[in-house]
Amino acid sequence: MKIALIIENSQAAKSSIVHDALRAVAEPLGHQVHHYGMYTPEDKASLTYVMNGLLAGILLNSKAADFVVTGCGTGMGTMLAANSMPGVFCGLIIDPTDAFLFGQINDGNAIAMPYAKGFGWAAELNLQDCYRKLFDGERGLGYPKERAQIMAKNRGILKELKAASCHDMLTVLKSVDQELLKSAIAGERFEEFFFANAQDNAIADYVRRVRAS
Amino acid sequence: MKIALIIENSQAAKSSIVHDALRAVAEPLGHQVHHYGMYTPEDKASLTYVMNGLLAGILLNSKAADFVVTGCGTGMGTMLAANSMPGVFCGLIIDPTDAFLFGQINDGNAIAMPYAKGFGWAAELNLQDCYRKLFDGERGLGYPKERAQIMAKNRGILKELKAASCHDMLTVLKSVDQELLKSAIAGERFEEFFFANAQDNAIADYVRRVRAS
Amino acid sequence: MKIALIIENSQAAKSSIVHDALRAVAEPLGHQVHHYGMYTPEDKASLTYVMNGLLAGILLNSKAADFVVTGCGTGMGTMLAANSMPGVFCGLIIDPTDAFLFGQINDGNAIAMPYAKGFGWAAELNLQDCYRKLFDGERGLGYPKERAQIMAKNRGILKELKAASCHDMLTVLKSVDQELLKSAIAGERFEEFFFANAQDNAIADYVRRVRAS
Amino acid sequence: MKIALIIENSQAAKSSIVHDALRAVAEPLGHQVHHYGMYTPEDKASLTYVMNGLLAGILLNSKAADFVVTGCGTGMGTMLAANSMPGVFCGLIIDPTDAFLFGQINDGNAIAMPYAKGFGWAAELNLQDCYRKLFDGERGLGYPKERAQIMAKNRGILKELKAASCHDMLTVLKSVDQELLKSAIAGERFEEFFFANAQDNAIADYVRRVRAS
Repeated sequence: MKIALIIENSQAAKSSIVHDALRAVAEPLGHQVHHYGMYTPEDKASLTYVMNGLLAGILLNSKAADFVVTGCGTGMGTMLAANSMPGVFCGLIIDPTDAFLFGQINDGNAIAMPYAKGFGWAAELNLQDCYRKLFDGERGLGYPKERAQIMAKNRGILKELKAASCHDMLTVLKSVDQELLKSAIAGERFEEFFFANAQDNAIADYVRRVRAS
Repeated sequence: MKIALIIENSQAAKSSIVHDALRAVAEPLGHQVHHYGMYTPEDKASLTYVMNGLLAGILLNSKAADFVVTGCGTGMGTMLAANSMPGVFCGLIIDPTDAFLFGQINDGNAIAMPYAKGFGWAAELNLQDCYRKLFDGERGLGYPKERAQIMAKNRGILKELKAASCHDMLTVLKSVDQELLKSAIAGERFEEFFFANAQDNAIADYVRRVRAS
Repeated sequence: MKIALIIENSQAAKSSIVHDALRAVAEPLGHQVHHYGMYTPEDKASLTYVMNGLLAGILLNSKAADFVVTGCGTGMGTMLAANSMPGVFCGLIIDPTDAFLFGQINDGNAIAMPYAKGFGWAAELNLQDCYRKLFDGERGLGYPKERAQIMAKNRGILKELKAASCHDMLTVLKSVDQELLKSAIAGERFEEFFFANAQDNAIADYVRRVRAS
Repeated sequence: MKIALIIENSQAAKSSIVHDALRAVAEPLGHQVHHYGMYTPEDKASLTYVMNGLLAGILLNSKAADFVVTGCGTGMGTMLAANSMPGVFCGLIIDPTDAFLFGQINDGNAIAMPYAKGFGWAAELNLQDCYRKLFDGERGLGYPKERAQIMAKNRGILKELKAASCHDMLTVLKSVDQELLKSAIAGERFEEFFFANAQDNAIADYVRRVRAS
């Protein structure tokens, strides 16, 4: 699985704590981690939580990433922004049991976590535990397993509801503030990761044009 | 403020615990609580978490409610469903500090809470504390207050992003599975609360037609 | 390691949830679990949280157990009672990071957990995660490891402080209310586990006499 | 009520955050806050968590303080040290519901809180909420109130158990490492607060002699 990591400006100083924790868990399980930034608080390309959400929408809808790990001070703003995008189902995860249940019941494709609220000593251990609950083994099996079928059915209905509610991603890209979009895709490693992995040509082309404009 | 309470089927047995806690806090503060169900696990009108989200979208976009309090076993499914609706910004709230920060920073119009995960003894006290942080005093003031302006600005950008991403609510109502919609508005007190308070005639008319069909 | 499980009356209905979770983690790691009761709310031998603490003191000071897992509604009363005993260092554990840090930094010999407060859906998963953090691998290594030495030194000073503060266990057994003591050791499997494993003859003899009296 | 605040060396940098939060809640409720240090990480008089516990024992047994608020990185070490002292019943408090239940059910005389683990952004709000649950209104009323009597009874039995287990405080003071004791009472405002408020002459005299030695 290709896991994209997205960090916003207020928590950019913790970028490597999060990145290290994610790699420590995900890579031995055979997943790739693509860190789309921010990398430090001094990065030229600054991401707000709204941009995090937009970027998550781009990466997931283009299939440049299979899963997005993101967050902000409380995780809440990023979660709201990510969930405003078509096809994105972003959980807010605080502890390992949240992560497990989200993976098994909701089987979403993104998580936001708080990197300031409740983020104290040894928080890196909690990050790792949460990642392990999500990325080790199969998701979507239901919990308890006897309820797997009804849970899967409801996920399908939710997907349809969201599809009825949102424009497709290309339309979204054309409608959003183009400066906001430009900022969301300005990260210094965006080009490297995105164009090598995106599988939706229409989205990739549009993104390419915006970057060039 | 008109606060709508929505409970889904898996946690319907806790309906009055939640309702009592919400009323105990909100009514002395001058707010009205409209309980849209479910009221008991045996209700004829059964709500799934997806329907909770759709109903939240109807109530907020029609201005039948100013704020929605909802949830499910983990709160996650309902939060995802609510956030898939236009104009709905639904936080996932676990503890009073979450509630406070969501109110001051994100200033959303809905919350989902877990009524099974972590919901043990004395959980009614936590519900009350969370409600108090949200409904006592003004929201959207920022925290810390020095950052109020930038937080307000980002909220505005998020609203625009979501507006670019979603269809308007009437279009959503017409596009979603009509059986799902019918179930979401079948609660026994829906008619009483909704038609007396909805301020959007087009939504109200469409809802009326669906109920009559 | 011999791990003793002690459950008090208010949470006796959850006895097998806790027992199953503990066995599922501890036995594959090579530990033995001795369940001293309560087993059901209807047990003849009823344990209050105060008795839990006294029993923990007996088991640890006699070396009938190497580690005690106990708790009550909030975990707090049992923790206070256990920590009133000589040689018992009982952590209050809520989440896996608590368990890990307690194991590595404090390296105590008992934990109390809440089995009612915060104990909702999927709480059995949190129990297992906490046990795993405690019982898988070596404890007392410090966290971060660079601080292992100072942490070990402080543990030693704490042990001396407690030794200066408390009577020895045999004296405690003779001084406490003998009816309380009798109730604490009345569990239906106490005899089976305790006398086969206790390594302190004076304590074992005293306990035998009290049981016979 | 006289509330003593005790901060240990690893969290001394947060001394004024904790002090400010405690004063903000306790003083308007009519309580006095005596901050026994540490005040900054550079204080001459350095307190370890073991010393915190010993100092809590001195203040409570001499009645120089009615309640002790203390803690450390996780709160655990300080809680263990405080609970090793005669007559000290120290809760480990994470969230407001813990604080409320500890106050109503266990009605102890000290709390330890974590000032590093889980202590992130807006943690000062959680401190205040916890203090309010403890210091606003009467403690020991039970929760639910129908169980007040049995809860009070068990508290009495716990007190007797601990009395049977521990030496009296004066004996403890004479038995502990005298250098440890000297360090525990070396804070720059200890003299000012302690001698003006202690009501046990024997403890006060012994402490005076140790300070002078």
